[in-house]
Amino acid sequence: MDIEFLRNIGRKIYKEVSKSKPQFNINALGKGASGDMTFPIDKMAEDIIIESFEKEGFNLNIIAEERGSKIVHGSNKTLIIDPIDGSKNAISGIPFFSTSIAIAEGNTLNSLNIGYIINLINGDEFYAERNRGAFLNGQKIGVQKEEKPVIVAFEASNPHIALKEILPMFKIASRVRCYGSTALDLAYLSMGALSIFITPTPSRIFDFSAGILIAKESKAFITNIKGENIDELPIDFKTRTTLLVCRDKELSYLALELLNKA
Amino acid sequence: MDIEFLRNIGRKIYKEVSKSKPQFNINALGKGASGDMTFPIDKMAEDIIIESFEKEGFNLNIIAEERGSKIVHGSNKTLIIDPIDGSKNAISGIPFFSTSIAIAEGNTLNSLNIGYIINLINGDEFYAERNRGAFLNGQKIGVQKEEKPVIVAFEASNPHIALKEILPMFKIASRVRCYGSTALDLAYLSMGALSIFITPTPSRIFDFSAGILIAKESKAFITNIKGENIDELPIDFKTRTTLLVCRDKELSYLALELLNKA
Repeated sequence: MDIEFLRNIGRKIYKEVSKSKPQFNINALGKGASGDMTFPIDKMAEDIIIESFEKEGFNLNIIAEERGSKIVHGSNKTLIIDPIDGSKNAISGIPFFSTSIAIAEGNTLNSLNIGYIINLINGDEFYAERNRGAFLNGQKIGVQKEEKPVIVAFEASNPHIALKEILPMFKIASRVRCYGSTALDLAYLSMGALSIFITPTPSRIFDFSAGILIAKESKAFITNIKGENIDELPIDFKTRTTLLVCRDKELSYLALELLNKA
Repeated sequence: MDIEFLRNIGRKIYKEVSKSKPQFNINALGKGASGDMTFPIDKMAEDIIIESFEKEGFNLNIIAEERGSKIVHGSNKTLIIDPIDGSKNAISGIPFFSTSIAIAEGNTLNSLNIGYIINLINGDEFYAERNRGAFLNGQKIGVQKEEKPVIVAFEASNPHIALKEILPMFKIASRVRCYGSTALDLAYLSMGALSIFITPTPSRIFDFSAGILIAKESKAFITNIKGENIDELPIDFKTRTTLLVCRDKELSYLALELLNKA
């Protein structure tokens, strides 16, 4: 399978979402494997993805937000899916959410081979293959230039504790953002619209995998919030990590220095 | 003039924006009256608004982000325009920005009579007339119900100082957001997608006027961050105020109590 296969899936979901807006005050269907509630939009998107792979006869391990994990004996490849990244935006009617799909060819994060994210409001598609660069709608993208003002995006599921922890880092920020979709944060950082993405709340493998590969291929500098490399983390449903993704190594060091003073 | 007149203007801008996406790495045209840089998208939107009013022969005072203020002798009505609210998102390629238009019939904020905001990515239109309720695409809207988890949206142009100031308030937040468009923050709060909007950095009259009327008509509780009523602030290009807009009075009191402990 290739990027075009994923793009066709993404556009199918985009088309479904476009038909049904605005979505708000929708009831949950139940609890998904991740522990979050599953909403009709989550199920619709995950069904489209899984069915598309099954129809083509691809026999892969699966890590999916709603269904959980499925191991296929003898398969080394893993499909990592967040059907709707930014679910809280989606179900409350705020138009900022995406689908995120990644494929890994081994047991650790450095084996991520394909990453694909589609903004489900305007259809913008971000994607990357390992060692082949990152793209937005067919155009090559790269991180922000160093002379630009520092815009820090963050995600936090426990705002008071998380913001207290990262507050000193905002000394280098001229603007702050919190959009509620880790996949899109990483996508927009990769195209140079954001300078730093930080999440002191551990992010889940299906939230960040596609974004991490796209960011890497855009030459972003990626660690956890302690400055540690995350390449060797396992491709596993339970994998979670804090993230500090910066437009370059220098900004990462500066951010870490301020974080350590906290 | 009525809401339909404003909706026609908004849809014209939406159509222009849809044609030209994605907008990024665009150079500024120069500095606007507000002190911010004017970009082609700001100028395009403001031109469409002003020309539409001029063509119809409406003789109004004007407060506009880019052109500044124009006083018409003998006119009591003022048109308050933010052609692109969320310019930083717009020029960096992040699809979350809007046009905001308000009309006041007197000299203070409590004379705001019409408010209109259009999300320029998906075309969602929020609007209100004084004492007639608030609407999204023709459907009546209202603030979030009190049993829902508290989602706090904020804006801040100096993140470190601003976040330090409002940090204690995040104790009541289950989620935080910072989208970069005050008009849309107020619009989404008005439809019940956000619980609190706070800006410790003073917001400018053209950023908040339409949103404030829409929020008021959605039964939101509106003060500055000291808990003071803002109704008597002058309709003037230089008017700025901090804002604390809550889904109800009880949540506002709780937020103020925490802010006072800072």
